[in-house]
Amino acid sequence: MTVVVQHIERASPEVVAGLAECGVATVHEAQGRKGLLASYMRPIFPGAQIAASAVTISAPPGDNWMVHVAIEQVKDGDILVLAPTSPSEDGYFGDLLATSAMARGGRGLIIDAGVRDVRDLTAMKFPVWSKAVFAQGTVKETLGSVNVPVVCAGALVNPGDVIVADDDGVCIVRREEAAEVLAAARKRMAAEEEKRRRLAAGELGLDIYAMRERLAAKGLKYV
Amino acid sequence: MTVVVQHIERASPEVVAGLAECGVATVHEAQGRKGLLASYMRPIFPGAQIAASAVTISAPPGDNWMVHVAIEQVKDGDILVLAPTSPSEDGYFGDLLATSAMARGGRGLIIDAGVRDVRDLTAMKFPVWSKAVFAQGTVKETLGSVNVPVVCAGALVNPGDVIVADDDGVCIVRREEAAEVLAAARKRMAAEEEKRRRLAAGELGLDIYAMRERLAAKGLKYV
Amino acid sequence: MTVVVQHIERASPEVVAGLAECGVATVHEAQGRKGLLASYMRPIFPGAQIAASAVTISAPPGDNWMVHVAIEQVKDGDILVLAPTSPSEDGYFGDLLATSAMARGGRGLIIDAGVRDVRDLTAMKFPVWSKAVFAQGTVKETLGSVNVPVVCAGALVNPGDVIVADDDGVCIVRREEAAEVLAAARKRMAAEEEKRRRLAAGELGLDIYAMRERLAAKGLKYV
Amino acid sequence: MTVVVQHIERASPEVVAGLAECGVATVHEAQGRKGLLASYMRPIFPGAQIAASAVTISAPPGDNWMVHVAIEQVKDGDILVLAPTSPSEDGYFGDLLATSAMARGGRGLIIDAGVRDVRDLTAMKFPVWSKAVFAQGTVKETLGSVNVPVVCAGALVNPGDVIVADDDGVCIVRREEAAEVLAAARKRMAAEEEKRRRLAAGELGLDIYAMRERLAAKGLKYV
Amino acid sequence: MTVVVQHIERASPEVVAGLAECGVATVHEAQGRKGLLASYMRPIFPGAQIAASAVTISAPPGDNWMVHVAIEQVKDGDILVLAPTSPSEDGYFGDLLATSAMARGGRGLIIDAGVRDVRDLTAMKFPVWSKAVFAQGTVKETLGSVNVPVVCAGALVNPGDVIVADDDGVCIVRREEAAEVLAAARKRMAAEEEKRRRLAAGELGLDIYAMRERLAAKGLKYV
Amino acid sequence: MTVVVQHIERASPEVVAGLAECGVATVHEAQGRKGLLASYMRPIFPGAQIAASAVTISAPPGDNWMVHVAIEQVKDGDILVLAPTSPSEDGYFGDLLATSAMARGGRGLIIDAGVRDVRDLTAMKFPVWSKAVFAQGTVKETLGSVNVPVVCAGALVNPGDVIVADDDGVCIVRREEAAEVLAAARKRMAAEEEKRRRLAAGELGLDIYAMRERLAAKGLKYV
Repeated sequence: MTVVVQHIERASPEVVAGLAECGVATVHEAQGRKGLLASYMRPIFPGAQIAASAVTISAPPGDNWMVHVAIEQVKDGDILVLAPTSPSEDGYFGDLLATSAMARGGRGLIIDAGVRDVRDLTAMKFPVWSKAVFAQGTVKETLGSVNVPVVCAGALVNPGDVIVADDDGVCIVRREEAAEVLAAARKRMAAEEEKRRRLAAGELGLDIYAMRERLAAKGLKYV
Repeated sequence: MTVVVQHIERASPEVVAGLAECGVATVHEAQGRKGLLASYMRPIFPGAQIAASAVTISAPPGDNWMVHVAIEQVKDGDILVLAPTSPSEDGYFGDLLATSAMARGGRGLIIDAGVRDVRDLTAMKFPVWSKAVFAQGTVKETLGSVNVPVVCAGALVNPGDVIVADDDGVCIVRREEAAEVLAAARKRMAAEEEKRRRLAAGELGLDIYAMRERLAAKGLKYV
Repeated sequence: MTVVVQHIERASPEVVAGLAECGVATVHEAQGRKGLLASYMRPIFPGAQIAASAVTISAPPGDNWMVHVAIEQVKDGDILVLAPTSPSEDGYFGDLLATSAMARGGRGLIIDAGVRDVRDLTAMKFPVWSKAVFAQGTVKETLGSVNVPVVCAGALVNPGDVIVADDDGVCIVRREEAAEVLAAARKRMAAEEEKRRRLAAGELGLDIYAMRERLAAKGLKYV
Repeated sequence: MTVVVQHIERASPEVVAGLAECGVATVHEAQGRKGLLASYMRPIFPGAQIAASAVTISAPPGDNWMVHVAIEQVKDGDILVLAPTSPSEDGYFGDLLATSAMARGGRGLIIDAGVRDVRDLTAMKFPVWSKAVFAQGTVKETLGSVNVPVVCAGALVNPGDVIVADDDGVCIVRREEAAEVLAAARKRMAAEEEKRRRLAAGELGLDIYAMRERLAAKGLKYV
Repeated sequence: MTVVVQHIERASPEVVAGLAECGVATVHEAQGRKGLLASYMRPIFPGAQIAASAVTISAPPGDNWMVHVAIEQVKDGDILVLAPTSPSEDGYFGDLLATSAMARGGRGLIIDAGVRDVRDLTAMKFPVWSKAVFAQGTVKETLGSVNVPVVCAGALVNPGDVIVADDDGVCIVRREEAAEVLAAARKRMAAEEEKRRRLAAGELGLDIYAMRERLAAKGLKYV
Repeated sequence: MTVVVQHIERASPEVVAGLAECGVATVHEAQGRKGLLASYMRPIFPGAQIAASAVTISAPPGDNWMVHVAIEQVKDGDILVLAPTSPSEDGYFGDLLATSAMARGGRGLIIDAGVRDVRDLTAMKFPVWSKAVFAQGTVKETLGSVNVPVVCAGALVNPGDVIVADDDGVCIVRREEAAEVLAAARKRMAAEEEKRRRLAAGELGLDIYAMRERLAAKGLKYV
């Protein structure tokens, strides 16, 4: 039940960096419209757009002991992903833990619970996507696990999966699919460029995507 | 059931522009405290204050086909208003659709569902008031309607009604009442100027509005 | 039932100012992890960090009459704290009331309901922590009370208690405990400085807090 | 703004009675999947299945004065439909008002707010669909309207529209479409009878509805 | 911070029994429309109508240790009232604890969190009003307090206060006001009897309460 | 992406039947406090207590086509488990589909969305645990998958996993752990019998579980 897995596989840094450039919406579409965390996961400040490898934490409600354990497992380019074992919005994480995570190369935090010290975290440019901002303190009494599969905000996250996060929210890419998803995402971005140009020039999606016939066949009436 | 109404009446551009200057709270009060959409409709970035004529969309959950249809109906000074036929927070709308809407003169989007690409939309200064920010992709399979009356976030919106939106949320003004509401709103703004000056000088609302007697009559006790 | 208490005790201005510097998370911890309002109480703009003495308002749903009554009781360094007698998200408070409150020395508003004119309030730098932003107007028909104990967003607030509020939310400090809590908070801040330095240098919390032995004793397994 | 409309059109009692027999799900489908109130509108006791003509009430939050006004307008076979002008869960209605409504021939209550005395209402067999059960008392200070169009729990209700309600929730049928909808609903019920018999005998919907070919064409793979 | 108060004052058994007969809505009105817990506090089975003296519990999220401590403090006619120190819906309480509480004379449980074994509790006729039904297990690691004032579901509860609970929810009566509230509640019940008779006979509230003149004075129009 | 897996492993009928007898709370504890679906998953009628093998469905929002596909895969002793690909409360399932599922030996439905015809389903004794009761109709346009791993109401469910469900909610047991969990659950039930007897006789948990010393060591004070 309570275990710390010390060695996990990660995607290549180049692939991770490439996914960061694509952003959440593109990556989500490129992998077949899957992988999103729930829409209540919001960034504590706007503008961050990152990708990183998941170090997962399964923690009891209101108990942040395992965060300390997890930080030792963080390598450069990782991100902490915390899922409580029952719903909580307590403030598991603040500026001291962020200082520690950053010192290990941590790139941020995804937490299906609360975060605090958000003014400091913003000043430190340490991005967090959370369910709540809440100063509620936590205890250090009960074990959990690090680097086991968790369900975070409705999505299954395996340790080493790639987290893509920006102002639109958070998306998971399976580690073993990351390179393939990146290729598909880049292709999609290239295709969108041409569409954007045509739409900006006043062409209609109805025409670009040749929708009129199918709409009529379905029975759409203009009056 | 599924229909696109191509010709709708709109309020005069001068009236619409005047309502934009007044803002949501003033317009809501001026028309007798009605017309607000639910408080969960929040702007994706602060500072926008607009008014525009509604092009309405009734769309199935998770299906944004009718948005493409609706954009063809957008004229300069219009705003898209999307109400799903059952609750959804999917991301019906992103930067490509915004590019297309802007090319037609569209001023923004009101959506009782989700929006995505909010970083791009912010950069484009394309304002959106939505229930959620969510990257979840949608399909194009089922028809809906354009420019029919819809209930959006708890308020009835007819095509051509004036939408006023700012950091306080969204308010509907019936097209046929728009000029009258503008006059009342301007009157209210003028009256507030004097009150603001007196309150800033330290006078109390209790005295300005002559409340003391009525409070005492109701039984208020000072101890 | 309906009463206005005109004379309340307040904490010393020095203590209040000191608590403002400490911020919500530190004060909450320093007083034994208590006093927080619910996490849904969010600031209307980021960056404000204040402390002030509570002037409390118990008001009926959708009726802001008692706000006018309360403002007369505001002294320099006070903050209004409004709890509706049943759940409401109506906009009890806007820029005119803020103008009046500021003229009396009011430092802000804590409201377990809605607020409006948030763009103006932001420009005025009048901070508000609220459950909702909502333009919905209110009436002036039914009495409530001023400066009685209220339960606001899940926390008991007595008139004269110290409110500490920042981007993390809102925390109550009992007036009679304020000096003691300040001392504890300052001690905590000092202690955190050293920890922050060590964590930034790459030391682990596991070592700084000597957690390894207790984790092992509880049964944590590394694999 | 505040008005009581005394004479409204109603659907014929036979049509209303017919719709009651069909129930919510069937009526909703028969009229093209429209007319449902939000899913949070739940019955206070199971088993009621009714249809009735709407007497609508627009009432301020926490103020039930207009309920008294509305009851005078109730005729045999009517149902009260209350929409507050801003969100409320106060207990606008209890056993005394139910006694009065029943004495006038009222068949129940649809309220996008709270109800109380539910034990008594259950004993009286007075059905209520509400957002909340809450004993919170209300005042009688501010006017509203009776028999004007309202948006109740996300649906537009005109006075005289037919309300169909059962354990599945609440559905509105436009008065002028009621006879036609009833015919369609009865046809649907008849068709379902045959389907139910075949499904109970072990035939699959895949075969009855001839779905296999279209599924394969869309790309469904069996592995 | 963590303390068990062993001796608390209770209201007289006769007064408590009298309040049980009056029920929540009547008691709430009789004491001036105060004392209700939030509407999300629902009974696990219908039909219970009780009053009892509060033994309060302040417990950490997901930790039910203090329930065991509290049960020792239960005397015949008491009810447990549990408020977590931060939001939780974990299942703090099940059939074993109910067995223990019943053996001490406990009459039920009010919990702003979760409960489990509801089928057994129903069979035992042990009434519970809770925020959630949830089987999630809890730990026994962190102390809390027993018989200190708590805020439970938005209401302040002092140890020894009288809890009145029925299908409408939960209402608190201050111990020291209990006799007076009972007298007012009985008076109200007697008055309602006459009103109920008149309303059942078809008289209108408009006439019984002489509302017509005041409605007209406020401006109500009949059309 | 869209696939129907036709052959899945199931736990033995004896193990499944054994788990049904233990119920949700016991099974959840016996497997180390894991496996619960979110607390919002509620039964449509009280009293059902079942266990069955999961046939999983991943379906688009508002589209129930895959339910028809899934029913063909149902064997005697199975239960349908539906997770929408984005949040939905539409009524994917009603009495016709229940008739079909029952004809194949289906034991019920777990759905993180809506269900309708609940009166009929109750009469048929077809148990459903759902997020909502909602009559909203769905379309048949977009494919999903059957018998793939899904995240349903916050829990990962693999096809063939054992679902245990009763009035406390829903718990997942991994197929490969089912026999072991059953053994642990039975052991737990036996141990509880003795505790229940002692607690009923008035012994305290404080004594039975020998808690007093540890409470004192932690610092609990009796006053």
